[in-house]
Amino acid sequence: MIVITSPHIEEERIAEIVRQIENSGVQAHVSRGTDRTVIGIIGKADPHLAEHIRSMKGVENVIKISKSYKLASREFHPDDTIIEVKGVKIGGNNLVVMGGPCAVETPEQIDEIARLVKAAGGQVLRGGAFKPRTGPYSFQGIGIEGLKWMKDAGDKYGLLTITEVMAPEFVDVCAEYADIMQVGTRNMQNFDLLRKLGTINNPVLLKRGMSATYDEWLNAAEYILAGGNPNVMLCERGIRTFETYTRNTFDLAAVPVVQQLSHLPVIADPSHATGRRELVETMTKASVAAGANGLIIEMHTDPDNSATGDGVQSLFPDQFANLLKELEQLAPLCGKKFDTAKEPAEAFREWKK
Amino acid sequence: MIVITSPHIEEERIAEIVRQIENSGVQAHVSRGTDRTVIGIIGKADPHLAEHIRSMKGVENVIKISKSYKLASREFHPDDTIIEVKGVKIGGNNLVVMGGPCAVETPEQIDEIARLVKAAGGQVLRGGAFKPRTGPYSFQGIGIEGLKWMKDAGDKYGLLTITEVMAPEFVDVCAEYADIMQVGTRNMQNFDLLRKLGTINNPVLLKRGMSATYDEWLNAAEYILAGGNPNVMLCERGIRTFETYTRNTFDLAAVPVVQQLSHLPVIADPSHATGRRELVETMTKASVAAGANGLIIEMHTDPDNSATGDGVQSLFPDQFANLLKELEQLAPLCGKKFDTAKEPAEAFREWKK
Amino acid sequence: MIVITSPHIEEERIAEIVRQIENSGVQAHVSRGTDRTVIGIIGKADPHLAEHIRSMKGVENVIKISKSYKLASREFHPDDTIIEVKGVKIGGNNLVVMGGPCAVETPEQIDEIARLVKAAGGQVLRGGAFKPRTGPYSFQGIGIEGLKWMKDAGDKYGLLTITEVMAPEFVDVCAEYADIMQVGTRNMQNFDLLRKLGTINNPVLLKRGMSATYDEWLNAAEYILAGGNPNVMLCERGIRTFETYTRNTFDLAAVPVVQQLSHLPVIADPSHATGRRELVETMTKASVAAGANGLIIEMHTDPDNSATGDGVQSLFPDQFANLLKELEQLAPLCGKKFDTAKEPAEAFREWKK
Amino acid sequence: MIVITSPHIEEERIAEIVRQIENSGVQAHVSRGTDRTVIGIIGKADPHLAEHIRSMKGVENVIKISKSYKLASREFHPDDTIIEVKGVKIGGNNLVVMGGPCAVETPEQIDEIARLVKAAGGQVLRGGAFKPRTGPYSFQGIGIEGLKWMKDAGDKYGLLTITEVMAPEFVDVCAEYADIMQVGTRNMQNFDLLRKLGTINNPVLLKRGMSATYDEWLNAAEYILAGGNPNVMLCERGIRTFETYTRNTFDLAAVPVVQQLSHLPVIADPSHATGRRELVETMTKASVAAGANGLIIEMHTDPDNSATGDGVQSLFPDQFANLLKELEQLAPLCGKKFDTAKEPAEAFREWKK
Repeated sequence: MIVITSPHIEEERIAEIVRQIENSGVQAHVSRGTDRTVIGIIGKADPHLAEHIRSMKGVENVIKISKSYKLASREFHPDDTIIEVKGVKIGGNNLVVMGGPCAVETPEQIDEIARLVKAAGGQVLRGGAFKPRTGPYSFQGIGIEGLKWMKDAGDKYGLLTITEVMAPEFVDVCAEYADIMQVGTRNMQNFDLLRKLGTINNPVLLKRGMSATYDEWLNAAEYILAGGNPNVMLCERGIRTFETYTRNTFDLAAVPVVQQLSHLPVIADPSHATGRRELVETMTKASVAAGANGLIIEMHTDPDNSATGDGVQSLFPDQFANLLKELEQLAPLCGKKFDTAKEPAEAFREWKK
Repeated sequence: MIVITSPHIEEERIAEIVRQIENSGVQAHVSRGTDRTVIGIIGKADPHLAEHIRSMKGVENVIKISKSYKLASREFHPDDTIIEVKGVKIGGNNLVVMGGPCAVETPEQIDEIARLVKAAGGQVLRGGAFKPRTGPYSFQGIGIEGLKWMKDAGDKYGLLTITEVMAPEFVDVCAEYADIMQVGTRNMQNFDLLRKLGTINNPVLLKRGMSATYDEWLNAAEYILAGGNPNVMLCERGIRTFETYTRNTFDLAAVPVVQQLSHLPVIADPSHATGRRELVETMTKASVAAGANGLIIEMHTDPDNSATGDGVQSLFPDQFANLLKELEQLAPLCGKKFDTAKEPAEAFREWKK
Repeated sequence: MIVITSPHIEEERIAEIVRQIENSGVQAHVSRGTDRTVIGIIGKADPHLAEHIRSMKGVENVIKISKSYKLASREFHPDDTIIEVKGVKIGGNNLVVMGGPCAVETPEQIDEIARLVKAAGGQVLRGGAFKPRTGPYSFQGIGIEGLKWMKDAGDKYGLLTITEVMAPEFVDVCAEYADIMQVGTRNMQNFDLLRKLGTINNPVLLKRGMSATYDEWLNAAEYILAGGNPNVMLCERGIRTFETYTRNTFDLAAVPVVQQLSHLPVIADPSHATGRRELVETMTKASVAAGANGLIIEMHTDPDNSATGDGVQSLFPDQFANLLKELEQLAPLCGKKFDTAKEPAEAFREWKK
Repeated sequence: MIVITSPHIEEERIAEIVRQIENSGVQAHVSRGTDRTVIGIIGKADPHLAEHIRSMKGVENVIKISKSYKLASREFHPDDTIIEVKGVKIGGNNLVVMGGPCAVETPEQIDEIARLVKAAGGQVLRGGAFKPRTGPYSFQGIGIEGLKWMKDAGDKYGLLTITEVMAPEFVDVCAEYADIMQVGTRNMQNFDLLRKLGTINNPVLLKRGMSATYDEWLNAAEYILAGGNPNVMLCERGIRTFETYTRNTFDLAAVPVVQQLSHLPVIADPSHATGRRELVETMTKASVAAGANGLIIEMHTDPDNSATGDGVQSLFPDQFANLLKELEQLAPLCGKKFDTAKEPAEAFREWKK
C-alpha cells in the first residue's frame, strides 16, 4: 500500500499520517520526491487502513498494491482449482459444456432437451426455475416445481444440473434439487446471497456483474470462499458498454486475465454475451480459444416459442450438436480435453424449423 | 409495438407472425416498405408478446413504443407524487435534505451528528447499520444495534431517519426502526428485496444501479409499486463509465428526464456520485438547479476517522451548514421551497479540522 | 513516478531497473515491502521514462504521480486564465453565453438569429460552416461562404463569432473570419489540427472527446498551449455511456474537476450533452450552478426545419431569451457576473411555433 | 424509416408530418395505435429526411430501418471483398498476419524485425513513422525517414508494409512508401482524412474508434468507399469501457457482427486491445476462432527498450513465431488458410531476454 501526499504538505501532517499507519501495527517508509512525498506501508495492513488513510487531509491517493481478495487469488493457491461433481471435473484442462433452455417450461420440454444435451456430448443441464426479470409483469419462472422436473431429467440422462438462485431463502431448496447454483449478473453483489452460498457444499457459478471490474468479481467470489465453500467457478457473460447491437459486450480477455489472477475455473456464456443466435457458434469457438474451462449455452427445441423470449439467443438442437462436434477438434489445440458427442448431428435435425 | 421483419421475408412467414400476434388478442397492421415489411401491433399487448415475437424467424427487431412500466409512469399518474412522513413532504416543489454519516458508529457519534443535521436545517438523518462492501473483510456495519441508536437520535431531534436494507429478511426490522428504507445501487435489481418492500408502507428510496438505464430503474420501482407500496422515491447516485477520476459519473440529466417519465420524487446523491468532498458542495447546487426534489449528503464530525473510509466524500459540519444556507437562496430560483437553517454556520466550526 | 515490481523479483532485476532509471538522470529510491518492492523516482523524469520502465520485465506497474501536462495545469498557473477578445472576457467570474444555430444556412437566417442572440444578452454567435457528419451522404455545411455570412452578422450586431474548424488546412481561413475556433469532439485528438491551432492567436474552444478522460483532454489542450497559443477554453459536451436516452451523458462534475486541475475556462454545452430541447433549459441552469464559465447553446428561429436535424436540441428564440433572464438571477449565487438581456422576452415570441 | 408520434397528437399535426414526408418524394403510411400513431415511410428517403422529421413537434422518435451506409453493406455487395496487393490476398478465407514494432526506430531495427516477420510466416510489416501520442512531450515518431527505412526492409524481404497516416497532407507521401494506409482509432472520424483516402488506390485499414458503434465505424468506411477507393479493411482494436485492467476491452464479437453487416475484411489487433504481452497469444487465437480475416500484432526484438513504451504489449520474436505455428493448425478449423512459417521457432530464440 502506497500513500501519495498532496504537493506542499507540511511536515507535521506527514508525521501524523505516519503515526496513524504505525498505530495500526505496520511500518511506514517515507520517500520524499521533488513534488510529492510518498509513504510506503510495509507489512500486512488491516483492510480498513487504506480507507482510513485515504480520508485524511493531505492525502491525495492511496494505492493498494496487494489485492483485497486472498482465497480467490492465484498467489494464495497456485494450482488450478478442479471442482469434481458426480465424476464431472470442472477446471484445469477439462472443458465442460452446460446446455439447456433459458427457463424450465414443462416436464416434457426439459426431458426432451436433457436427452438432446446428453446425446450431443454436454455434461450439465441448465434451466431456470426462478427468473430475474427487468419488469414485474414478465414471466417470473415456474418455481420449485420446475426444479423437480429438471432434477428428474438430469437423473434420467446422467447430467449434472445448474439453476439460478435469486435469494438467500431459496438456497436450500435449490441446493436440494440442483447440483450447481448459479448467481446471476444482477446478484453478483447481493452479499447476503453470497454469504449463504458460502455455507453450502454445492459448486457455485458466479456470473460477472454487468459493470463489475475483475477486482469486484473476485471479491464477490471471496465472499463465498471465505464462508467455507471452495467450489466456485466464474462466468463471463458480457458487460454493459455503449454498444447495444449485441445484448452485451463479450469481454473475452476476461478469461485469460482472471485465470492469471485466480485459480478458479472460468466459464464463458456466449448466449447472454451476444444475445443473438447467429453469433453464438462463432463466439463459443472464440471462448474455447481464449482458454475458457467451460461453456454455458442456451439450447431449445422450439426457440420461437420459448417462455422468456430468450429464444432469440438459443441454438437449435442440431446447431448445438454440430458445435460440440467442432469443439472436439478445437479443444486439443487450446490445451483442453473434450469428449465426443454420442450421436451424429443429423439425429438432431428434426427440431430445426 | 412494432415488428420489423428481415429483408426478403416470404409472405407465409409474415402471415405466421400476424397469426401469432392476433392469437394473443391484439390486432396486427401490416405495412410493406421498399426493403422491409413492418407490422404494427394495435391494442394492449401482453408483456410476453414482444419477447415471443422477437424470437421468431424472419423478425429482425421488435420495438416497444409503450413503456413496460405503468404505475411509475407520468402518463398513468400525471401529478407529482408527494410522499408525506411525519409532516415532512417529499416531492413536488419541496426540497428535502438528508444528511449524516456513511455508517452509524457509536450512540454518541450519531447523536451528535443528528443534532448538527437538525441545526443546519436538514429534515432526515441518514446512516448505515448494514453496509454493502465489495470485499468480505471490510467493515460490514454495526447491525440492528445501530438502527436503535439512529432511531433514538432521530426521535430526540425531530428528524426522519433513512437506512439501507440489504436483504428481504431484514426489511421488517429496518422498517420498525427507520422511517425510510434505502435500496442500494447493487440491489436495484434484487427483485426479492423489491417485492418485499412492496408489502410495507414505509417510503423507499431506490438508488439507481451502477449501470442501469432509466427504463430498468423505473421498472425496478414498478416492482415496489405493483406490490402495493406507492411511496417510492428515486435516487441518482452516479453511474459507472470509463472516467475513474470521480468515483462515478454524476448523470444529472437523469433528474429532469426521470421527472418527465415518472411522477416519483427524484433525490440526488452528490456524495457517492463524486466520491470527493471538494466536489460535493458545487454538485449539490447543480443538483438543485437540475430540479432535484431532495439531496442525500454525507456529513461527519470526524471524517478522517470514519468507520468505512467514505470520510473522503463526507462534508464537515460547517460545510454542510453553509451549503444549506446557500440552498435557501438557490431553491426558489429553481421552483423549490427550502426552510432556513436554525443556527449560524459559525456554530458548526468547532468540528472543522 | 512509482515503479511497482512483480512479487518475487530477483535482486539483479531490481538493480537493472534502478540502473535504467539512474541512466536517465533521475534518482531511484528502493523500498522493500512484504510482497513487493517499490521503486520511487525522484526528480523530473523524461516523459519517455515511464513508458520505457513499464515495458521492462519484472515491472508490474508504473504509476505517474506528477501530471503529464504542465502548461495546462493549475500548479503551473495558479490564477484563472481570462481570455479577452474584443472586450469580452472569458474565464474567472465572467459568464459568457454563446448562442446560435447548429449550421449556417442562409445570410438571412444567420442575420436574424444574430440579432436575437444579441437582444437576449448573448455575447458570442455560434454557427457551423463545416459540419462533421457520421455519414458521407449527410449535409456537410455551406463552407467558406457561410463563414462570411456569419462574420457579417457578428460585425453588424457586435457579437463575437465561433465556428468549428475540422482540418489543419482550414485553420487560416476560419481564423480570418471567426473570432473563436472550435475543435469538435471527434477531433479532440487530431494532433495535427491541435498543433496548427497552437500557431495562431485566436482563442480555441476544445470540446472533450466522446470518451476522453480528463487527463487526455488536458493533454490535448497542452498541444495547443505548447505551440504558443495560451487562449484555450475547454468544453464539456457529454460523454458516451451505456445510457442512450439522452444523446450523451452530461458529466457536469467535469466542470469543477477541470477547474481544479487547470486554470483554463470551462464552457458547458447542454445542447449536445442532452440532445433534447426539453432538457436544455434545466441543464443550462445546472451548468451555471456547477460553476461553468460559459455556455454554448443551440438556438434556431425554425428548428423544425434546421439543415442538420439538430433542431431537436435547439431552443426557440423566446426560450433562449427567458433562460438568459433566469441566469441573471442565478449567476450571482454561483459567483458569476451576467449582464441583463436587452429586450423583454415577449419580443422573441413571434418565432415560436 | 418509421415515425413515432407523441401520445395525444392532434390530427392536423399528423397531416403536417405526412405532408412534409410526401413533399420529399416518398410515401407516408399512417397506422393509428391505441396510444400512439405510427407513420411508416415507403421509398428511398433522403438521408436528410429523418433528421428533419425528428425535429418536428409531435414527433417522439424516428427509427431508421435501412442502414445509412450503402457501399459498405453486405446487402449492396453480398460477396466478401478480397483485397489483393502484390499477390497477397486479404479477405475471404485468407488469413493475413501483419507484424512489427510500434514505431520505426532505426534502419537496423526495422530490417532485423522485417527479416523475422518474414521468417515466421507473416506477410505484412507494420511500423509507425508518425505516432499519435496523448501528450505533446512524448516521442512523435521518426517521420518520413522512417517510411523509407520501412520500404527498404519490406522490399528486401518481400513483405507488404502498413503504416499510420495521421493527416490529409501526409497521405500522398505515406502512399508513396507504404502499401497499406492505417487510420488510427483517434482519427476514425477525421472526415477530411477519410475523404483524402478515398482518392487513392492503396488499401486502407480503418481502426475502430475507441467508442465508435458498429454503425459509425461502417459509416466511416463509407466515406472512403464513396470517394472511390474500394480497398477498405476494418480493424477491431478494443473499445473503451469501465474496465481498465486491460488497455481496452477487446470486443471480439465485432468480428462476426461486422462480417454480417459488411463485405469488408476484418482484422483483429490483440496487441492494442489488451495492452499486455501475456494476453496477446491467447487473444490472437481467440481472434482467429472468431473469424478474423487477419491479425496485426506488435513484435519487437528488444521490447524492454522500445521507443514508444508499447513494448509492454509487444511479443518477443520467438513468441511471435510460435504463435504463427499454432495458427497453422487452428486456421483450417475456422475456415481459413494460413501458410507455414519458414523457419523453426528455435531460430528466433536469440532475441528472447
